[in-house]
Amino acid sequence: MGGEAPGSADSQADGVLDLLGLLAYASMTAFFRISDDAALAISLADKTALAELAVVQFGHFQLLSRRIEELGAEPGVVMQPFVAPVDAFHARTAPSDWLEGLVKAYVGDGIASDFYRTVAQVLEPDTRDIVLAVLADAGNAEFVIARVRQAIEADPRVAGRLALWARRLVGEALGQAQRVAAERESLARLLTGETTHQLGDIGRMFAHLTDAHAARMAALGLDD
Amino acid sequence: MGGEAPGSADSQADGVLDLLGLLAYASMTAFFRISDDAALAISLADKTALAELAVVQFGHFQLLSRRIEELGAEPGVVMQPFVAPVDAFHARTAPSDWLEGLVKAYVGDGIASDFYRTVAQVLEPDTRDIVLAVLADAGNAEFVIARVRQAIEADPRVAGRLALWARRLVGEALGQAQRVAAERESLARLLTGETTHQLGDIGRMFAHLTDAHAARMAALGLDD
Repeated sequence: MGGEAPGSADSQADGVLDLLGLLAYASMTAFFRISDDAALAISLADKTALAELAVVQFGHFQLLSRRIEELGAEPGVVMQPFVAPVDAFHARTAPSDWLEGLVKAYVGDGIASDFYRTVAQVLEPDTRDIVLAVLADAGNAEFVIARVRQAIEADPRVAGRLALWARRLVGEALGQAQRVAAERESLARLLTGETTHQLGDIGRMFAHLTDAHAARMAALGLDD
Repeated sequence: MGGEAPGSADSQADGVLDLLGLLAYASMTAFFRISDDAALAISLADKTALAELAVVQFGHFQLLSRRIEELGAEPGVVMQPFVAPVDAFHARTAPSDWLEGLVKAYVGDGIASDFYRTVAQVLEPDTRDIVLAVLADAGNAEFVIARVRQAIEADPRVAGRLALWARRLVGEALGQAQRVAAERESLARLLTGETTHQLGDIGRMFAHLTDAHAARMAALGLDD
């Protein structure tokens, strides 16, 4: 605050707020989407397990929006620029059944976690702690893996359909991420610019995300 | 266990499981309904506040179903008899807008809390502790009261419509409660039978619920 080069400090602060706003809105939306998708489940046990994943997302939202307030900003304002791209992602990836909903919750949470882990490295300690706390509170992935594997065992053709679905999810997510990066300069700079030496280059970041995604697909029995 | 009159002990245990099953299913359903209704909110702040109420309900569900498991039963099985009446209540009381959703969350949570407080008196200590823990974790009623009062200030005709809506909610809830009491003898006996001396008579219980409901209506600015 004060003696530093003002442009770069402000830009870093803007980038951090953008990042928190994006993660907060994405978590809140995930909460609503997963709750909706849980309604597609037939058994009470499945419904409950998916509702638990939804509640974990809401916990993330609460942590992130509390941090936004600590930084003196208004969560509603900070989230606003990300409403359109996040909503567009969900509009283009509405699951047509319970299994697609499960895979979406799992893939989405996995990509988000990898992203959190990667960006945590470039953040100042207080915000980094929040992001790592969000990360530590993982949903129950074992439940999703077991259910998807059961469904594939019962009908092996399901694997092809879900593998295609997962690829579409990643494609749509990357498409919206590019849109966000193009529109929010300070966020893009935070993730790729001055701090490149800490983060590695953006290619390395995406390579890591893609590798981790492939590992999750293998866990589901959906190797492409 | 052992020396007591077996019929009465079993019946008490069945009644407690019924009660926990009813409360658990009602909480889980409240979670889904309130999440759905939150989607009707326009501002992010309103959406968030209603989502918070939903998450509180899910916490209740988790506490209650853990207690069911501790008693050696399966939550899905214990909840099953209450799926039809609870679902029927919600099917007959789908809010037509955001304000009706708010009032429903508030009235429903209020009646549930009064009911919990009343039945806690007849439960053995461990189950009573769970029920009181559920009760202590109240949602943010101030938010609902403020929003409903704002809406009435903006358009006084809203008060009449919402007062009517609240009466319908209570009527439908009591109708389904009677159905449950008729179908689940051990639950009805737990609440009104052998333990009448602790609970007071059922008339007193309903009078208390009705008084507390009237106080909540007054807080909303919906005195009938």
